[in-house]
Amino acid sequence: MEKQYAVIGKRTPQVDGIEKVTGRAKFTVDLMLPNMLHGKIKRSTYPHAKIKSIDTSKAEALYGVRAVVTGMDFPERKLPGCLCDGYPVARDRVLYVGEPVAAVAADTLEIAEEAVELIEVEYEELPAVFDPEEAIKPDPLVVLHEELDSYERMMPIGKMDVKRPNVFNLYKIRCGDVEKGFQESDLVVEGRYSTAYIQNAPLEPHASVAQVEADGRITVWTSSQYPYGIRKQICGYFDFPSHKVRVIIPHVGGAFGGKSDLRAEHFCIVLSQKTGRAVKIVFTRAEEFTAASVRGPYIIDIKEGVTRDGKILAREVNAIFHGGAYSEIGFFKPSFGSNVIVGSYKIPNLKSDVYGVYTNHLVSGAYRAFGCPELAWGIESHMDIVAEKLGMDAVEFRLKNVIEEGDKNAAGEIMHSVGAKECLLKVAEAISWSRESEFRKAEDEKLPPLQKGAGGLADESSPWKRGKGIALGSKYSFAPTGSSVIVKVHHDGIELRTSAVDLGQGSNTVLAQIVGEEFGIPADEVLLILTDTDITPPDHQAGSSRQTYIVGNSTRLACLDAKRQLFEKASEKIGVAPDRLATKNYKIFVKDSPDKSINISDLFDDLFFVGPYQREGAEILGKATFNQDVSDYDPDTGQGERRVSFYSHGAQAAEVEVNVETGKVKIVKFVSAMDVGKAINPMGVEGQMEGGVHMGISNALYEHLVIDNGQVVNPNFMDYKIPNILELPHVKEIQSLIVEAHHRDGPYGAKGAGEVVLVPTAPAIANAIYNAVGVRIKDMPITAEKILNALKEK
Amino acid sequence: MEKQYAVIGKRTPQVDGIEKVTGRAKFTVDLMLPNMLHGKIKRSTYPHAKIKSIDTSKAEALYGVRAVVTGMDFPERKLPGCLCDGYPVARDRVLYVGEPVAAVAADTLEIAEEAVELIEVEYEELPAVFDPEEAIKPDPLVVLHEELDSYERMMPIGKMDVKRPNVFNLYKIRCGDVEKGFQESDLVVEGRYSTAYIQNAPLEPHASVAQVEADGRITVWTSSQYPYGIRKQICGYFDFPSHKVRVIIPHVGGAFGGKSDLRAEHFCIVLSQKTGRAVKIVFTRAEEFTAASVRGPYIIDIKEGVTRDGKILAREVNAIFHGGAYSEIGFFKPSFGSNVIVGSYKIPNLKSDVYGVYTNHLVSGAYRAFGCPELAWGIESHMDIVAEKLGMDAVEFRLKNVIEEGDKNAAGEIMHSVGAKECLLKVAEAISWSRESEFRKAEDEKLPPLQKGAGGLADESSPWKRGKGIALGSKYSFAPTGSSVIVKVHHDGIELRTSAVDLGQGSNTVLAQIVGEEFGIPADEVLLILTDTDITPPDHQAGSSRQTYIVGNSTRLACLDAKRQLFEKASEKIGVAPDRLATKNYKIFVKDSPDKSINISDLFDDLFFVGPYQREGAEILGKATFNQDVSDYDPDTGQGERRVSFYSHGAQAAEVEVNVETGKVKIVKFVSAMDVGKAINPMGVEGQMEGGVHMGISNALYEHLVIDNGQVVNPNFMDYKIPNILELPHVKEIQSLIVEAHHRDGPYGAKGAGEVVLVPTAPAIANAIYNAVGVRIKDMPITAEKILNALKEK
Repeated sequence: MEKQYAVIGKRTPQVDGIEKVTGRAKFTVDLMLPNMLHGKIKRSTYPHAKIKSIDTSKAEALYGVRAVVTGMDFPERKLPGCLCDGYPVARDRVLYVGEPVAAVAADTLEIAEEAVELIEVEYEELPAVFDPEEAIKPDPLVVLHEELDSYERMMPIGKMDVKRPNVFNLYKIRCGDVEKGFQESDLVVEGRYSTAYIQNAPLEPHASVAQVEADGRITVWTSSQYPYGIRKQICGYFDFPSHKVRVIIPHVGGAFGGKSDLRAEHFCIVLSQKTGRAVKIVFTRAEEFTAASVRGPYIIDIKEGVTRDGKILAREVNAIFHGGAYSEIGFFKPSFGSNVIVGSYKIPNLKSDVYGVYTNHLVSGAYRAFGCPELAWGIESHMDIVAEKLGMDAVEFRLKNVIEEGDKNAAGEIMHSVGAKECLLKVAEAISWSRESEFRKAEDEKLPPLQKGAGGLADESSPWKRGKGIALGSKYSFAPTGSSVIVKVHHDGIELRTSAVDLGQGSNTVLAQIVGEEFGIPADEVLLILTDTDITPPDHQAGSSRQTYIVGNSTRLACLDAKRQLFEKASEKIGVAPDRLATKNYKIFVKDSPDKSINISDLFDDLFFVGPYQREGAEILGKATFNQDVSDYDPDTGQGERRVSFYSHGAQAAEVEVNVETGKVKIVKFVSAMDVGKAINPMGVEGQMEGGVHMGISNALYEHLVIDNGQVVNPNFMDYKIPNILELPHVKEIQSLIVEAHHRDGPYGAKGAGEVVLVPTAPAIANAIYNAVGVRIKDMPITAEKILNALKEK
Repeated sequence: MEKQYAVIGKRTPQVDGIEKVTGRAKFTVDLMLPNMLHGKIKRSTYPHAKIKSIDTSKAEALYGVRAVVTGMDFPERKLPGCLCDGYPVARDRVLYVGEPVAAVAADTLEIAEEAVELIEVEYEELPAVFDPEEAIKPDPLVVLHEELDSYERMMPIGKMDVKRPNVFNLYKIRCGDVEKGFQESDLVVEGRYSTAYIQNAPLEPHASVAQVEADGRITVWTSSQYPYGIRKQICGYFDFPSHKVRVIIPHVGGAFGGKSDLRAEHFCIVLSQKTGRAVKIVFTRAEEFTAASVRGPYIIDIKEGVTRDGKILAREVNAIFHGGAYSEIGFFKPSFGSNVIVGSYKIPNLKSDVYGVYTNHLVSGAYRAFGCPELAWGIESHMDIVAEKLGMDAVEFRLKNVIEEGDKNAAGEIMHSVGAKECLLKVAEAISWSRESEFRKAEDEKLPPLQKGAGGLADESSPWKRGKGIALGSKYSFAPTGSSVIVKVHHDGIELRTSAVDLGQGSNTVLAQIVGEEFGIPADEVLLILTDTDITPPDHQAGSSRQTYIVGNSTRLACLDAKRQLFEKASEKIGVAPDRLATKNYKIFVKDSPDKSINISDLFDDLFFVGPYQREGAEILGKATFNQDVSDYDPDTGQGERRVSFYSHGAQAAEVEVNVETGKVKIVKFVSAMDVGKAINPMGVEGQMEGGVHMGISNALYEHLVIDNGQVVNPNFMDYKIPNILELPHVKEIQSLIVEAHHRDGPYGAKGAGEVVLVPTAPAIANAIYNAVGVRIKDMPITAEKILNALKEK
């Protein structure tokens, strides 16, 4: 029998929801400090050029300008990261349009903007490379980082066996004998897929404020998902002692991976050092689109060999990730994203090479699910094509190959907590899957019989054709990683100190629920301290769907440590051994004699005019660290026993209508089923699924940052289309199903829920469109124009 | 041999000095928050009146006004404190000119000021009492607090045996048989002395900002010396859970005792509750003088009986402290101030009654040395009068009676750490004391012979007459009290978390030195976290000269706890028992084999992209609480074994010139000697002495807040005279001597240094003036007018 919980597993509104929806939550963009200056960054207008000179004299002469800085005012050191391939401000050359070349601090933003215009930069344009297939060549026209001549230095994860000067990462997986696999296959299918440039587009743009104190101590407020990482980057770049740098993260208005690297923080610091005043920089929306990071495109070549009866025998993946001018956090994308190739199916023979390449484009960074949706776009489109060629139902084909508990995947991991199959069955059921399919007979007989659905061309007379599509996906969560949490016991409340940033994904609520569960109090009574490195202990990052699993674990352990201390104190007072005690509702009671109890507040003295007070040991602080380590693995084969924290699995099914006269697509029903281990907050998981579906639809059908000769053509919400509420399926048409494949290492069995939902969305839609109108779009986004062109071709 | 220290005992510049002198330190008055409103308080114009009606409609109609509140918007609860005798905002009557009756929050301060003028209050004036001798009568003309009918309730400390309805406290000391003492005396001398209304006048006025969040959590930034007290008062008054209230104290621009009670905080809170926005209130200088607390006057009657050879046999003190309309923290003044009566001399028979009385004046609160300088004004002036009548040198008379180590004082305390005699001798030596004196022969023969000084009328032809005066004083430090401190060990620094507020007195430096001493690092490398109740643990108050002794102790203990943890961790790594380890300069080494060492940073892992990290237990936090308890004592006699934390002792000597034609007084030399137990920062102790002397001279000769019919007449720095740098003795003419009577319970033997310096200043000057021109001014301040009148009378 499953353990009964009082707080976790319950539908719980976001604990910080009210302050957000009432507009009272404060974000970095809201921040004001006494005497604060406004900063503005001057950016390159060339994709590749030498800087011949920078004349700041006119800007400096402008009334109200307090400081003008160029690369020469910054330490001559590359930004810390994997590759250290970029200066924070261009010194002698620029590698993309939007690269910082100077910055200004002034009394008002208007003056700063005017001053930036007055900075005169003389460039000598150089040839640029924009095409990743050109860039990846062994002898390309342009080499972006000639200084990076040591491939050992470039490849901390994985070694590269070919010298291609614009490649910054190559992640390889080798399993079995892929050539033999293809030879033994009854059918081998090849295909090329590609994705587009898209932008994270959070509501709150990048925003930072820095104040350098007279004693050198620095406080940085910033809209970031990576507080300790930002601190480490600052300390590494400026060579500051880490205890001298305080990073505070107010509420964050979205990030989706894009707020992981230094963007404005270091400018604020240098300008504050120069002026002695606080300096604030807020990106414009245009800067978000041109100078923040983007989700760079992939070109994905897939070759798959299968038996006649639908068993995958071999898979070969060759993909190029378009990383832009500097690698930054995108360095990891080929590595981590490759996990999706091995996450869902049993593949006896696999050869996968995912390259990251430099071009003279803006920087590609993290975006929700970090490379997995892009590669899944190829894999799951390809699965449908193979199934069709086999004459097999797409669900049945997937079920024949889906990975299950205890299976070893193609990277050598023994899979645990695998809800893939259950997700697949659930969405098939919910979408009334009825394409030719045998799987129903073999599977759970208790499910109600599927109704005849509207798959295929529904109504011959209407231009609107209806179809259904399905896709499977997985999302790893990275490791090694770790998290420290402190739980402070007040006489009248329990406080959680964590640096896990809630970007809107609801981690605050989940963590408050865990504290609530452990202390027997409602989640909304838990006092949550927003991230402040002076108060909240180290945590890795709000990323990779790790908060519930990693920080959930450290939170639970910190609660246990706090309770241990409480029970020891209570034990002295009520004369019962600590291990016989429990706590609920601010009382500590004897488990087998609950009438015998003491209030937590009774463990405090009341010092006159000070209030509740510990006569010994200052405060009751439960402390814990949870570490998720990895096993060694072989960079030449990608094989290792434990390479990630966990895998979340998910399946999605779309029912679409496609207008054959206009190419327009309407999503009429969308079903997600996600395996989250244990849904600590089912309402939050559903929120993730609903938001993820909207984002996935937007990615699949609309979003495309167009870049021409290195220049972003549509850096605004007029020209860069994100669907609005009228263009997306109504929430009633979105169904979110929770699957719980308990994870033995997760808190209460929980894993992560934030990203997997995005992995199968686009291919599910592409598959549905193909089902509706018989055209297969292989390059995202699936625009009306592409559908019409394909229909015409057909 | 005294222990050698590396950091303490060294002259150390203030660790926060640079940011303060460069103007970069941020004070509450500097604070800005997004959407912040400005508040303003409407105040009573009557000293005693019924409020018939308040019409806020015109104020509410003013453009930019966001909220107008009156007493009815506040909880109907009196402010917590000893007596709970006042509402924060008048409800149906006002008791003094300046009492709050309403408040406004508006977009700008100017609008708020205009709105306050538009609030119409209709009063019905009532008779008022201003004279404390009228107020103290058993059947006075006006009773201020008829609701306080229970004297038991009014008297938590000490019981009152007479029913006098305007008395809010009576503190009694009874020792021996005072009548018998007078009968056995050869000489009995009586005298009456009085002090004036003065104001603390810190550079930074009262300033507070409050932000009430949507979830009810409240953050208050305030210029206060009492962070946890403010939090307790807020929670008590509003009935908030304490963990929902965060009090942050930025740098504080002086307080001197005046920033201990709620002044603006609760207005900010109610206005923020009403508007959902941050609200800031900064007092004007006029409000500081009329609506913040003042040092209320005393009337002191002293009767002293002595033997022919100068032994005090009996002392009777009857004093009235003028407390104003509400008691607030001033409730304690009669109790605590009484300690000065027993602190310096052996008095076999003592009867002391110090009353606090209500009148329709503004509230009297704490002021540096809390009642001691006022009572010492009487005692030490009287000592000189008695000495003269005995025909005995004033120093010799004091030396015959001065209290010494192991003596039991008149309150029953066995005195420990008593530097009084040494202070007296040192200042006599330094001022070249040469009045008829026998003591030199009896005392230390090693001192150089005294030179013939300029005592008495120096130059018959000049109107400037020269004289010398001396006085002795003591300052208790209150108890019970306590302090918690946390010391966090970073991989590259040591952080101190304390709620001990540095008001300018230098406590941050002293505490940083203690941390520096314990860790073997320079004081200025210690990272100090300013008070924030979310981070810094409970501490009682920046008051009563307690920081060095109380917080010094808890800081030292927290360092020991942190080092215990470090040594345990290091022990595992280097295989040496923890008790054989020590630390210096961020290294842990084996004491008897210093080459064997490990860096503190080696006890941290480096988590990728997170930075230094504890793989277990989140953070290294040393925690400690130091409590100073008191013994029971008898409220009817004031007798108890330990009633205070410690006594600091001090003596001062003034050399003055008095102009017999104008009455003007010049201080030509001023010497202080203070017994501080151990001077942790000699430079800081000297700073306290120099600042204290300036303040004492200002009190003695200049400051006088004139109140006419309840109305302050001179609420500004033009009419309320504080001497400027030209009117005060040059720092070269001020000599500061440190005496160290090691205290067994103090950290490194230290006591407090902040207040005793003010205790003997005014009587030393009065005694010098008498010595110069033969007139005795018994009511402070000693103005030129009073001297001239006295000279004329003579």
